[in-house]
Amino acid sequence: MSHLHGLNVYFEENRDKHLEELNEFLRIPSISSLSEHKGDMQTAAQWLADALTKLNIENVSIDQTAGHPVVYGEWLHAEGKPTILFYGHYDVQPVDPLHLWDSPPFQPTVRDNKLFARGASDDKGQVFMHLKTIEALFATEGTLPVNVKFIIEGEEEIGSPNLPAYVEEHKDKLAADLILISDTGLYAPGKPAVCYGLRGLTGVQIDVRGAKGDLHSGLYGGGVQNAIHALAEILASFRDEHGTIQVEGFYDKVRPLSDEERQAYKDLQFDEEALKEEVGVKELFGEQGYSYLEQIWARPTLEVNGVFGGFSGEGIKTVLPAEAGAKITCRLVPDQEPDEIVALLRAHIEKHKQAGVEITVSEFDKGAPFITPFHHPVIQAAGRSYEKVYEVPTAYIRGGGSIPIVAAFDEILGLPVVLMGFGLSSENFHAPNEHFHLENFDKGLRVLGDYLHEVANIKHS
Amino acid sequence: MSHLHGLNVYFEENRDKHLEELNEFLRIPSISSLSEHKGDMQTAAQWLADALTKLNIENVSIDQTAGHPVVYGEWLHAEGKPTILFYGHYDVQPVDPLHLWDSPPFQPTVRDNKLFARGASDDKGQVFMHLKTIEALFATEGTLPVNVKFIIEGEEEIGSPNLPAYVEEHKDKLAADLILISDTGLYAPGKPAVCYGLRGLTGVQIDVRGAKGDLHSGLYGGGVQNAIHALAEILASFRDEHGTIQVEGFYDKVRPLSDEERQAYKDLQFDEEALKEEVGVKELFGEQGYSYLEQIWARPTLEVNGVFGGFSGEGIKTVLPAEAGAKITCRLVPDQEPDEIVALLRAHIEKHKQAGVEITVSEFDKGAPFITPFHHPVIQAAGRSYEKVYEVPTAYIRGGGSIPIVAAFDEILGLPVVLMGFGLSSENFHAPNEHFHLENFDKGLRVLGDYLHEVANIKHS
Repeated sequence: MSHLHGLNVYFEENRDKHLEELNEFLRIPSISSLSEHKGDMQTAAQWLADALTKLNIENVSIDQTAGHPVVYGEWLHAEGKPTILFYGHYDVQPVDPLHLWDSPPFQPTVRDNKLFARGASDDKGQVFMHLKTIEALFATEGTLPVNVKFIIEGEEEIGSPNLPAYVEEHKDKLAADLILISDTGLYAPGKPAVCYGLRGLTGVQIDVRGAKGDLHSGLYGGGVQNAIHALAEILASFRDEHGTIQVEGFYDKVRPLSDEERQAYKDLQFDEEALKEEVGVKELFGEQGYSYLEQIWARPTLEVNGVFGGFSGEGIKTVLPAEAGAKITCRLVPDQEPDEIVALLRAHIEKHKQAGVEITVSEFDKGAPFITPFHHPVIQAAGRSYEKVYEVPTAYIRGGGSIPIVAAFDEILGLPVVLMGFGLSSENFHAPNEHFHLENFDKGLRVLGDYLHEVANIKHS
Repeated sequence: MSHLHGLNVYFEENRDKHLEELNEFLRIPSISSLSEHKGDMQTAAQWLADALTKLNIENVSIDQTAGHPVVYGEWLHAEGKPTILFYGHYDVQPVDPLHLWDSPPFQPTVRDNKLFARGASDDKGQVFMHLKTIEALFATEGTLPVNVKFIIEGEEEIGSPNLPAYVEEHKDKLAADLILISDTGLYAPGKPAVCYGLRGLTGVQIDVRGAKGDLHSGLYGGGVQNAIHALAEILASFRDEHGTIQVEGFYDKVRPLSDEERQAYKDLQFDEEALKEEVGVKELFGEQGYSYLEQIWARPTLEVNGVFGGFSGEGIKTVLPAEAGAKITCRLVPDQEPDEIVALLRAHIEKHKQAGVEITVSEFDKGAPFITPFHHPVIQAAGRSYEKVYEVPTAYIRGGGSIPIVAAFDEILGLPVVLMGFGLSSENFHAPNEHFHLENFDKGLRVLGDYLHEVANIKHS
């Protein structure tokens, strides 16, 4: 473990400098879903390309796509050794409602050894750790124990619409022995986890239109359909009072949990009371017959992410609204297929359409669910690296979130995916006050450094 | 009818000048519900006070209230003659969504002999007609045939919260023989109507809160309640698929329609096809067993006026929303009581509350429904004045809208209310592109001038 000692010293000596660099990256408001940030996406890509170049990474390029660019780079001088393809994303979620942030989302601020900023944890902070791992290995060992490639995209938060085509096109260039992704979390503070499965994602927007314009609720109310009522009827029909989804056929292809998995999850002794405290609810709410971990890891969902219609300003406006809409996403589990689920949603919406309105359903980008065997050597190696730094047994878990590109990697490149994340579920990804515990930034750098050596020692297939 | 000839000449000669003055009034953005327009409310009140003073109206005052001011004035020199109390309002509805207006809401524009502006029809345009009627009678006859009082408020669009107390306090000053209100419409283009009943109004805002902040739908989705789903469940529970309200006890006090009324409405031969064309719907939607006119005049409603929650921007945001809300108003008919209806709504909401959320219900201001016998001499006189100018039989109808203060006038002052309106239901009150057909501005001025003579000839009780 001499390499770990060298890394320790290097990371301690350079910590302030590294955080300053990370803050520079976090200050770029690279929100992929909002067209007004298109320029910021280019700026963030350029920042990454410059950073990779400074690390001795070769053939660095900013590859334009139909959407936001992909940043690529490689270093292939560890002859006879495996190749790790590092994947990450430099785009972030929107930041509204802005007034709920204690410090501005694009002005990184450290409070209580946590770094607050949009993207601190998801995923800029973790992408940055990949870069600093390479920097530290070159600095302390003069070389890398494995070959590396980087593919860092700017569209993860909008479903990676252009990455599958990019991966397909650059299939040969991206050839590797495994894909390493740090975009998930520890199981709990101090308890590392290797994630062997993720939920997929699909979604639709429902737009309801009644009259050609808003009407006076006194002059027309009682005789003309109200777009919000028609929408509410559809939204309410999606789930029963326990949250079980009522869309016909929705659960048909869900792979049942194995007894082994259920036992493994049970052994984690998940603390539901602590969760309630954390999110601020008096009671949890979900599908009957499943534990909380089963609900979020191995069961699909249907959530309304946003609803809008009529007058939402101060006071009242006695309007009979002509338009209303909702954004809906489903988290999918093996073996549900996104296209099939969208078709079921469309049929359900049509079935619950009330008289007097027209409904338009538009689709968001999709990602399939993903699962990988956790006995694979690159997965086991990850568990060992975690254990050396965190000094507790690694948990093998699934994730409730989605990294749409994982399924595409699986399908196109046919590589094992290793999800080694350093976030914590309490870190408000996608919400105001996103932050990253710097303790896991520090430990994670050492875990990643060690992991490259662990992989170097796996017999190259 | 010599007075009608004099009025004709006067209104023709002064038309351009009158429209210029009206435009000045319409340019003041007197939106009562938005606190940023508080100053504009004072400006509008001052404009009216100045205009009344120029008309020889006496004792003009701007009376401050806990909200927006009331403008008062009087002329009481028609000895032995009845007194008409003119009521109107100078406040207007909000103007969003602004992008749907073809010309800016506070830049009055005439297109196709229609005056487009917020308040053109509801109610600044009609209040202005009261003023010009007085001006014309003074100019052509040197005096007025009746005594007049003016009470013009600035809170009608927010439910007149402070006017009942004002009326109670100034009960003696406001004594009169009838109240004349022009805030309703013709039955149809060319077909005048006296309105003998109005619906009341009450409403609540429902605020639903789940977790203490928005959550990542991947990390928590499936195990924590979603505020929008809990809200949708409540909203959907309010009505059945035909729009019949499912709130227990809601219809208990509704006064059934008399056979005479049903026949009278039927005789109006309402054109449902034209209505569908006008509002742009393929089918109407309402309570079964009632005609459209019955639905909007004599049956109560429950409408969601606005709904909000989660992410409603461009693209998707995979959030599990912590907060959602809806604004709801009910149009009430005799003998429903606003306070009782709110209590029923509260019970219904409580009954349909799902697990995992807290719900807050807040109340908007209320107005009782109102009905007056249409055989009253001041009502019949109104019918005659309309017929002289429009040259067709006057319809005796009810209105689906609410003028909350009418019930208060009825209760506090005990006066017959005459609703002589000149708007048309297609004029987009409360919606983008509000306008006023200038044909009815012109005719209405003559009708009102004649009506003062008609009232002068009623034997003073």
